[in-house]
Amino acid sequence: MKKRILGIDPGLNITGYGVLDVGPSGVSIVEAGVVRGKSRGDVPARVREIHEGITDVITSLKPSVMAMEELYSHYERPKTAIIMGHARGVLCLAAAQNDLTFHSYAATQIKKILTGNGRAPKSQMQESIRRELGLSEVPEPADVADALAVALCHHYLSKIATTI
Amino acid sequence: MKKRILGIDPGLNITGYGVLDVGPSGVSIVEAGVVRGKSRGDVPARVREIHEGITDVITSLKPSVMAMEELYSHYERPKTAIIMGHARGVLCLAAAQNDLTFHSYAATQIKKILTGNGRAPKSQMQESIRRELGLSEVPEPADVADALAVALCHHYLSKIATTI
Repeated sequence: MKKRILGIDPGLNITGYGVLDVGPSGVSIVEAGVVRGKSRGDVPARVREIHEGITDVITSLKPSVMAMEELYSHYERPKTAIIMGHARGVLCLAAAQNDLTFHSYAATQIKKILTGNGRAPKSQMQESIRRELGLSEVPEPADVADALAVALCHHYLSKIATTI
Repeated sequence: MKKRILGIDPGLNITGYGVLDVGPSGVSIVEAGVVRGKSRGDVPARVREIHEGITDVITSLKPSVMAMEELYSHYERPKTAIIMGHARGVLCLAAAQNDLTFHSYAATQIKKILTGNGRAPKSQMQESIRRELGLSEVPEPADVADALAVALCHHYLSKIATTI
């Protein structure tokens, strides 16, 4: 059975997303991009833009799973984390409204799964994503690469779970 | 012209709300209560419950303004603040989706306006709310009192703004 995974890197300015298909022949990119919260300084307008943008992605591509980095990964930068919490809230809402299952993974877990090193630098992560998805270039911006990383992490961990 | 203010105290477990009417004879409570995120451990289901609950309040009572404590008031407790950010995100979304104007106030500003003291203890705040709204008892739970406090703060500050 084919599975479609929506990986997300949440942010109030830029939310990266990456949609992967998992089939018998492996994993492939369906689409990847960003949703922008354009209305600077106006949180309600920005969360609406993010919610509408990701709802459009879900409606058109119909993934069955949403994967995101864990809640407390950005704990050491509370201001960023609180703002990210707003974006994460409306993204989780879109998952619930569209019956996607929701999974989250710690940043170190994502790095460990993709590179074997829980403290891998960004460049090593990006190269792993590029190689695994058979891309000629590293995905840009970083928000897209991070979204693909968490989608890949979900794929690897659910593969382990179903084959063991 | 009558103005209806929706004050909110956001939380993923309990979101307090208080709706005030401001007319020529002063300010009065229309309704106050809580919306509960009941689905423990499941963030998407909880933010959906909060979003649906507050959307119901907005649809039935038709406030024109949403007032909330400022983003960084809980800065010193990052874990609480990140979780609160999720609830705040879907509440802001409900404001934008229903064309409410959105205003936020620092915790110290709310206390100062209501009691004259930016560091007023909870009991003094609750007594001010009780007296100002002509209630026989202090509003409970604390989430409702906090929601009424921010609505009152918005009322006082917009009254000053329009009379000066």
